[in-house]
Order: sequence, then C-alpha cells, then structure tokens
Amino acid sequence: MPRAWTLKSRPKGMPTADNFALVDQPSATLEDNQIRVANRFLSVDPYMRGRMNDVKSYVPPFALGEPMQGGAIGEVIESRAADVPVGTKVQHMMGWRDEAVLSASQAQKLPSMDVPDEAFLGQFGMPGMTAYFGLLDVAEAKAGETVFVSAAAGAVGSTVVQIAKAKGMTVIGSAGGADKCDWVKSLGADDVIDYKAGDVVQALAKAAPDGIDVYFDNVGGDHLDAALLACRMHARFAICGMIDIYNEGQPQALKYLAKVIGARVTIKGFLVGDHMARVADFYADMGQWLKDGTLKREETIFDGLEKAPDAFLGLFTGANKGKMLVRV
Amino acid sequence: MPRAWTLKSRPKGMPTADNFALVDQPSATLEDNQIRVANRFLSVDPYMRGRMNDVKSYVPPFALGEPMQGGAIGEVIESRAADVPVGTKVQHMMGWRDEAVLSASQAQKLPSMDVPDEAFLGQFGMPGMTAYFGLLDVAEAKAGETVFVSAAAGAVGSTVVQIAKAKGMTVIGSAGGADKCDWVKSLGADDVIDYKAGDVVQALAKAAPDGIDVYFDNVGGDHLDAALLACRMHARFAICGMIDIYNEGQPQALKYLAKVIGARVTIKGFLVGDHMARVADFYADMGQWLKDGTLKREETIFDGLEKAPDAFLGLFTGANKGKMLVRV
Repeated sequence: MPRAWTLKSRPKGMPTADNFALVDQPSATLEDNQIRVANRFLSVDPYMRGRMNDVKSYVPPFALGEPMQGGAIGEVIESRAADVPVGTKVQHMMGWRDEAVLSASQAQKLPSMDVPDEAFLGQFGMPGMTAYFGLLDVAEAKAGETVFVSAAAGAVGSTVVQIAKAKGMTVIGSAGGADKCDWVKSLGADDVIDYKAGDVVQALAKAAPDGIDVYFDNVGGDHLDAALLACRMHARFAICGMIDIYNEGQPQALKYLAKVIGARVTIKGFLVGDHMARVADFYADMGQWLKDGTLKREETIFDGLEKAPDAFLGLFTGANKGKMLVRV
Repeated sequence: MPRAWTLKSRPKGMPTADNFALVDQPSATLEDNQIRVANRFLSVDPYMRGRMNDVKSYVPPFALGEPMQGGAIGEVIESRAADVPVGTKVQHMMGWRDEAVLSASQAQKLPSMDVPDEAFLGQFGMPGMTAYFGLLDVAEAKAGETVFVSAAAGAVGSTVVQIAKAKGMTVIGSAGGADKCDWVKSLGADDVIDYKAGDVVQALAKAAPDGIDVYFDNVGGDHLDAALLACRMHARFAICGMIDIYNEGQPQALKYLAKVIGARVTIKGFLVGDHMARVADFYADMGQWLKDGTLKREETIFDGLEKAPDAFLGLFTGANKGKMLVRV
C-alpha cells in the first residue's frame, strides 16, 4: 500500500522525528486527466520548515494529519491523460510519499537534456534557478565583483559559488566545518569561512579587506551582519533564505544595519518563481557549464522513504553537501 | 570676536551639553577668492550625531577642539571674490559659528525663489530634497499607494507627508505625543500613530490593515519591524536615517526581517547627494506646492548661537516640529 509522511504535530523551534508520521494511503482510482506517479526522488528543502507553522506565508502551511508536499521526480505508472503516457518522467510537488495521484496539469515533463533525473530537483531545478536568478538578476552581480555567499555547501550556495566563478567573480563562501569548507574551495571559491570556527563578522572582514559587492543570503543572523559591515558602496544583497530563524522565532539582532545608508546598499528579498522569464538562459548556461566541466554536481542522498524526516532534519544540522535528496 | 562651537569630548550614547564648548575664534584676514559670511541661520541635523564618533562613515568625524561643521545661511560681509560681492546671501557648510571665512567656491548663492532664506536649510534644502528624492526616486512611491513614514513631525518626515499627499498617496505617519500627532494630521496625513502611546507594531497593523507599499524610514528599530510586518507584496523601503541607533551602538532586534523574502521587499539606503540630477524638478514642484498652499512650512527656531547645542540635543528628545534651526 502507498505510504506518505504526514505532519503529526507542529514543531516549536527545531523539529524532531516525533513531528512526522508515516501513514498508509489507500490507493486512489484515477479520474479523467489524472496520472499515477511512482516517485523516485524526493526533495527536502529548508523552506519546508516554514510550512510546518500555522501562519500565513508565501506558501500555505501543511495541514496536520495530511500528506506533506514537496518537489518530487518519478515515472508515470498509470495514466488517464493522453499526452502523459505511462513511462513519462515527470516533476511535481506531491513529494514526501512513494506514490502520487495528481492531475496531468500539475506535473511537468522533465526537460530533454543530458542530465540525470535527480538533478532537476537540484542544480537544474529550483535550487539551481534560485542561485542563478538570485545572483545574476536580483543582486545583479557582475564580472570582477566580490560575492559573499552563506551556506555555501548547500544546494543553492554551492551553485552560487560555481556560477559566480563561471561569470568571472571573486567568491567568498561560508560553511560549517573543515570538510565542507574544503569542498567549497574545491568548487572554486577564492576563500571560505568556517563559521563554526569563530566569529563570522571578523572572519569576513579579514577575508574581504576591500569589502564585498554582493551578498547572497541563505541564513540571515550573524552572516547578514557580517555582510553589512563588509559592504562596499552600492552593494546589493539578495535575500534567499534565513535558515537561522526558521526554527527560532527569535528577533535577529543586527549591529550594522545603518550601514545601508552611507553605503547605499540595496537589500532585496526574492522568490525564484518570479524570474521564470529567463529560464531558457538558465538551462543554456547550466547545460554548457555541466558539459565543459565548469559545474560540478553534488547530492547527498538518503535511501528509502522512511529516511525522509532524517534527511529534512539534516538540513538544519548541516548533514548535506550540495542538494539533499531522498531516493524512494 | 567671532565664536564657534567646538566638540570638546566625544559622547558615549546620548550627547550632553558638556560635549560642546563655545570658543572665541580670532578673526582671519581674507585671502584671494575668500569671503567672510555673517551667519544668520544654522542647521542642526540628526546625522551630525554620527560625526561625533571617531569612526569612518559617509561623512568624516568632527575633530576634537575644532569648530564643528553644518549647514548655514548668511550674508557676505567682506569679499575678495569678484563674483560674490558684499551683500550676497549664501548657503555653506561652516555652521555652528556666527562668522565663517571660506572660499567662494564652497558657498552657493541662494536660488532666486520667493521663499524665506531659512527655508533653504529646511524644505527647500537638504531635508526637503531628502524627502522628495527618497519618496519619489528611491522608494518609487506612486499615486494610490500607501506610505508609512516615521518621525513624521521632523524636518524630513513632515515634508514626506505633504509630498505624498500632493502626489495622491495615502499616508500614515508616526510621531511622539498628541500635539505632534495632531500637527502631522493637520498636514494631511490620513492616519497618525503616537509611538509614545503604545506598541508601534500593533498600531501600524491596525492603521494599515491592508498593508503598506512604501516605508520611509527615519528611525530604524521598532518602526522598521512594524513596516516589515505590514508590508505588501513588492513593498519598497527607503532608509534615510536610523535616529534610534545613532546614540546607542546597540544591535537592532528585528522580528520580521524574513518577510522581505515572501513579500519581495526592496530595502534601499540612500544619501540625498546622489540624486541632484533631479534638483530642478524638486524646486519646480516644491515652489508650486508652496505657492498654491499645498505645502506648509514649519520651523522650530532656537534664538542665539549659545543655544545651538540645546537645539541639537532637542532633535533626540523630539523638541522640534518641522525643521530645527538656530537663529544667530
């Protein structure tokens, strides 16, 4: 019988395994224009933490006791939609389960590119687009500029590092622990800050004595303060995520916010969905960079649907290099 | 003998009268191209607090024991510059003193407009331009939008209120105390929050149940947090000043910063000097609004050079309605 992860209770602060329950799902009969998909890969992403709270946000909250949602890739195993026959590989948002029944219109066929399927949940999917549009369109980073990116070993951050290098920028990343820092450096970062080894504000001031032009923010908190202190004139900050505060509900204390005035900083929050007009450029650039070896893929894969909560919780303890995935 | 206020000691936190000393200045002989100006009005402004610290910022720090600087308007009483004869009224940056000796190139003749001289230190000078360019160019506020402005009884804020109304916007201001709130309302504000009477976050949520499109920030702190919580999709924040933190050096605690992501907020710091390309539009609009009664002038004037520190300190206790000036 198909199974799905449901939200059993809403976490306060950091979630635990107890917040999740794996529940049998009676197999539904297909209606017209519906498809049945055997999921192969599930995505777990930091933004999902926000959906576990019962508050209005840019995505609606998960309902208690219902299957959770999230990016997934799978293969159509039954179809009542003529243009999506059995065998079609699709991407959709009914993750956290091994089998999904949905309208064909809610699924996208995978682009025909020479890329492994699971990459469409990572560098060739939402995290990759977030990196590409955030860096190039939101922050308007240009060749010759200095970019600071937090969570540089994560799915988005590690792609930001590589796109920035491909575009001729100087890149400073931050990551937690020597192993991840080494990996970020191997991706081409000019310098890497180990935020677990000391104060990130001082470390960035040392790593970027002439300041930064762009900050790609995945975490908020001290990293944002470090970027404010280090910012050059007319610096641009793209605010992608604030993983530091998803679990806390604590105020963020910023000592250097007033620097935005004198340095004329622009801080922009963004969501990847607003930038789809340029998706063809994204595929063209990323495809080329993968082909010529500029872009390295990395996924951290947990095997088995049972492991989905572990994979998700691992995002907040830094268990992943690159994109965190669950193989069903 | 001419006298000038010098910075005797650098304040920690809120400045006091003890930080200032009024010192006799031997009258200098003019060199070629220099002028001697009898100052009539001196400007005191919140940004001067920053210059009292010995730290690099967008304006250099005041030197200990030297006459301080600031906007001033006066009349040329001696001249060795052919194009700036005795009797010319000029504006310059050698305030905090009764008599200034400077190069003619450091002084600007007052524009020939039907406006009292002292207005060129207020609505027709730097504070007015800050309001105009910040609201219309930095925040790109448009007719029909809802604008929130803090320190709405101050020189900049009260002008923002009036420009926003002249341009067809809905305006919510904040000010401290019933008297000032009444005055801001008399300027045309649709609603006014008395930040001394309660929590500004709750008050703004109530005053703007449908949210705000623009926040003109003069104070930072709780007001900024209130604006973040209330922001509509694609809101723009123009960060003009953060008077709340000039005196504190404390971190700002923001609970709602992550709202910039979902609401795609743009936060921009700015300095008025970057926007001078549009100064002709500024004079044209402001002149017209003054003439037709749309724009009301208000200055709080302290009489006598001796009172300059009191006037300055009054900026931080809310002693002014409109522009704070010293009449020499």
